[in-house]
Amino acid sequence: MVLTMRGFPPVLVFRRFSSSSPTTTIVTKAIPSKSHLHSPIPDSAFPKGYTLTGLHCGVKKKSGVLDLGVILSTSPRPTSAGACFTRNAFKAAPVLVSQDVLARTGGRARAIVVNSGCANAVTGKQGMEDAWSMVRATDALLPSQSQAPRESETLVMSTGVIGQNLPIAKILEGIRSQGPSGTRTLGSTFEAWERAARAFMTTDTFPKLRARTFAVRGKEFRLAGMDKGAGMIHPDMGPPSGQLHATLLGCILTDAAVSPRSLQSALTYAVDRSFNSISVDGDMSTNDTIVVLANGAATAAEEPEIDEATDPEAYEVFKQELTSFAADLAQLVVRDGEGATKFVTVTVEGAPTYKDAHAVASRISTSALVKTALFGEDANWGRVLAATGSVALSQPIDPTRVNVSFVPSDGTAPLPLLVNGEPEKVDEARASEIIGQEDLEIKVELGLGSESAKYWTCDFSYEYVRINGDYRT
Amino acid sequence: MVLTMRGFPPVLVFRRFSSSSPTTTIVTKAIPSKSHLHSPIPDSAFPKGYTLTGLHCGVKKKSGVLDLGVILSTSPRPTSAGACFTRNAFKAAPVLVSQDVLARTGGRARAIVVNSGCANAVTGKQGMEDAWSMVRATDALLPSQSQAPRESETLVMSTGVIGQNLPIAKILEGIRSQGPSGTRTLGSTFEAWERAARAFMTTDTFPKLRARTFAVRGKEFRLAGMDKGAGMIHPDMGPPSGQLHATLLGCILTDAAVSPRSLQSALTYAVDRSFNSISVDGDMSTNDTIVVLANGAATAAEEPEIDEATDPEAYEVFKQELTSFAADLAQLVVRDGEGATKFVTVTVEGAPTYKDAHAVASRISTSALVKTALFGEDANWGRVLAATGSVALSQPIDPTRVNVSFVPSDGTAPLPLLVNGEPEKVDEARASEIIGQEDLEIKVELGLGSESAKYWTCDFSYEYVRINGDYRT
Repeated sequence: MVLTMRGFPPVLVFRRFSSSSPTTTIVTKAIPSKSHLHSPIPDSAFPKGYTLTGLHCGVKKKSGVLDLGVILSTSPRPTSAGACFTRNAFKAAPVLVSQDVLARTGGRARAIVVNSGCANAVTGKQGMEDAWSMVRATDALLPSQSQAPRESETLVMSTGVIGQNLPIAKILEGIRSQGPSGTRTLGSTFEAWERAARAFMTTDTFPKLRARTFAVRGKEFRLAGMDKGAGMIHPDMGPPSGQLHATLLGCILTDAAVSPRSLQSALTYAVDRSFNSISVDGDMSTNDTIVVLANGAATAAEEPEIDEATDPEAYEVFKQELTSFAADLAQLVVRDGEGATKFVTVTVEGAPTYKDAHAVASRISTSALVKTALFGEDANWGRVLAATGSVALSQPIDPTRVNVSFVPSDGTAPLPLLVNGEPEKVDEARASEIIGQEDLEIKVELGLGSESAKYWTCDFSYEYVRINGDYRT
Repeated sequence: MVLTMRGFPPVLVFRRFSSSSPTTTIVTKAIPSKSHLHSPIPDSAFPKGYTLTGLHCGVKKKSGVLDLGVILSTSPRPTSAGACFTRNAFKAAPVLVSQDVLARTGGRARAIVVNSGCANAVTGKQGMEDAWSMVRATDALLPSQSQAPRESETLVMSTGVIGQNLPIAKILEGIRSQGPSGTRTLGSTFEAWERAARAFMTTDTFPKLRARTFAVRGKEFRLAGMDKGAGMIHPDMGPPSGQLHATLLGCILTDAAVSPRSLQSALTYAVDRSFNSISVDGDMSTNDTIVVLANGAATAAEEPEIDEATDPEAYEVFKQELTSFAADLAQLVVRDGEGATKFVTVTVEGAPTYKDAHAVASRISTSALVKTALFGEDANWGRVLAATGSVALSQPIDPTRVNVSFVPSDGTAPLPLLVNGEPEKVDEARASEIIGQEDLEIKVELGLGSESAKYWTCDFSYEYVRINGDYRT
């Protein structure tokens, strides 16, 4: 018996063979292809002064699948580095080591090494040694910049299964292959950037790589970035001094010159409004890390670094560009969320504080009931409201001031669902039309103040359960 | 092409017809039948002095499906009442009305009326009027106990879809059918209790009804209770004066005599350790309500009510019995959780405070990654750890003091997975054996103190997504 449970395509059909049978068959819509989200970028669009690669070293079993990325700054100027790390209490070894590197150098780093396939998390003393080995092997690829015995200048990231040790010999061999006597594949073309982006991937279905150009006082700079999801995505990252949580990895590289302190504060601001405002499954990883490098390669040696204290205007331009670029990269992770068929923006307005707005947006974005309703294309605003009401805000919610609407992505009129706490007579055909779109916005107005926040989330599908019920095997 | 993704039965198989096809077929294990959890109870086991029924009045479309329950105390003694309600800001009309009734009577109520199929939530002024109509119609079924113009003595509960008005005429007709001139079906047999329990059901697969006997100083009393889930289950309920959250409905009836104040404080204690310690999907409803009535029908008129101040010993016995009984009822909801194939106890020990222990247990119990791993029968302790580490406790977690183990339900030896922060060499065959059982305990020891908490949760299956992707249609 096949029951057609919803009338509109793509169809959602459910079938139970018999009550005594151990199997159930679910015929559902396929996950839409995301391949159009990855396309070539001209070589000239990438920031100057970086050389990078991605290779297969053997962390992943399948031959040819990239699992090791190396990124080096070749700029003659000092390279500034900032990072935000997970607030999880069980910080993985690469997180602890990268924090240590930044603390020792005072925010300078010239290299990034990343592996996928194994998170090097909960791996004890051996894990720490392995992460340091990766750092030192990558350090050795950097040209010496001074005679003094130097600190390590490499940040390290790992993603994959928790609780297993790295196949460190294979990784070190892979890193050393990029040395002068190795089969060096480092480069600066789109192909090289793309290989590095691929080395980040775990359950991602496409490499996430973006570049853009921006100007400070008429002078052009470039930003490029890559990141990966696609599960255990609900980051809560803070600057190195904070505690940790989130597996989201990413790096942003620019050829602007920015002081270490200002680079970190711009990144912290940007991450709150981008990577800390996305959710795939509401789970925080032990490894979440976003790194930014600013190598100054597009500037002359005598030009000062952008700094908040000495040139607040230039800093503000840089901060806003970084935030907008980080939001683009963060949204790519949601679009490629495990099993995602929808990309949903949750906007909360009229909150007493930004924290309140962010908390409500986060709760709606992580509600299993909201997310399954989105998958089922059901305009179930009651679940949005129940999620909203379950958050303890700094000021009590007055139900009679709350509005909820669905905003279509095609620019047509929004659909009010709840106005001043009272349900609207909903045009179900119109509701189905809006919720049938791949992109959609849920808007909640609290009527309590003037603060707002945005969150990006996806739906919860059978495919999510399949991917995560069967990840390790 | 059929890929067998796990070796052990029940099989989990995934099949994609073709990359261009709009459909995906998932063959998965069936949800185990829960029918053995419901069986007859001798009439004599139920508390004295209650008459009750369940009937079909037409809230639900399908003829014969019960959707209205009426419970009346027939005791000559005053009946005490206590209740815990959702802390959600969008409290449904029946929640507000029941709070009002309890406030007016000072904790006395003799009747409960419940409907399923429509939650009467977010229904504005009309919703409040409808809830009051239900109360008054049920009041009319009660024999008058004094000459004074009396306050309403009925508590009302509703569960079902949010944002739709009740078909109030049908409901009132149903209530009135229980009056002297109606087709009265009220009774005190198992059959009557079972009908009332069935009237609570929404997506529940069996009526949840339990009874037990307890003794205070050698004198026997009885407790009976019924409740319903099965989704939007992550209650956080407080006494009437508190704020609210949760759709879990339940009532517990006893023939002991307990003062209103002590009944409420015993219920508040019990609910924290039972209904507020279960999770199906991590979502809180606008309607969650647990009601307790104590009618003294098993006592002589001159016997004093049990009271914490005057007889702390008797009160303590009653409180512990109520807590243990409430935990039984709460666990039934998890066993029947939407799409659940596993019943999982999460025990957190060694926490600095009860609140810390409860917060960690709650986070693990609601993690989508933990729950999908349980469904996939994957002993993925890394996800348990990531969830644990994402909670901000009153004292920082020291990873080197944390232990995680899986405890089988068959009494055989526990399986240590993480000892003092280091992963154990896990016997995968043994891990599969334990996680293959329907009942399972996940134990986390924090090593930070002596407080502990238990939580009960279930796994996240394809069936959960199906039920909740397609609830309203």
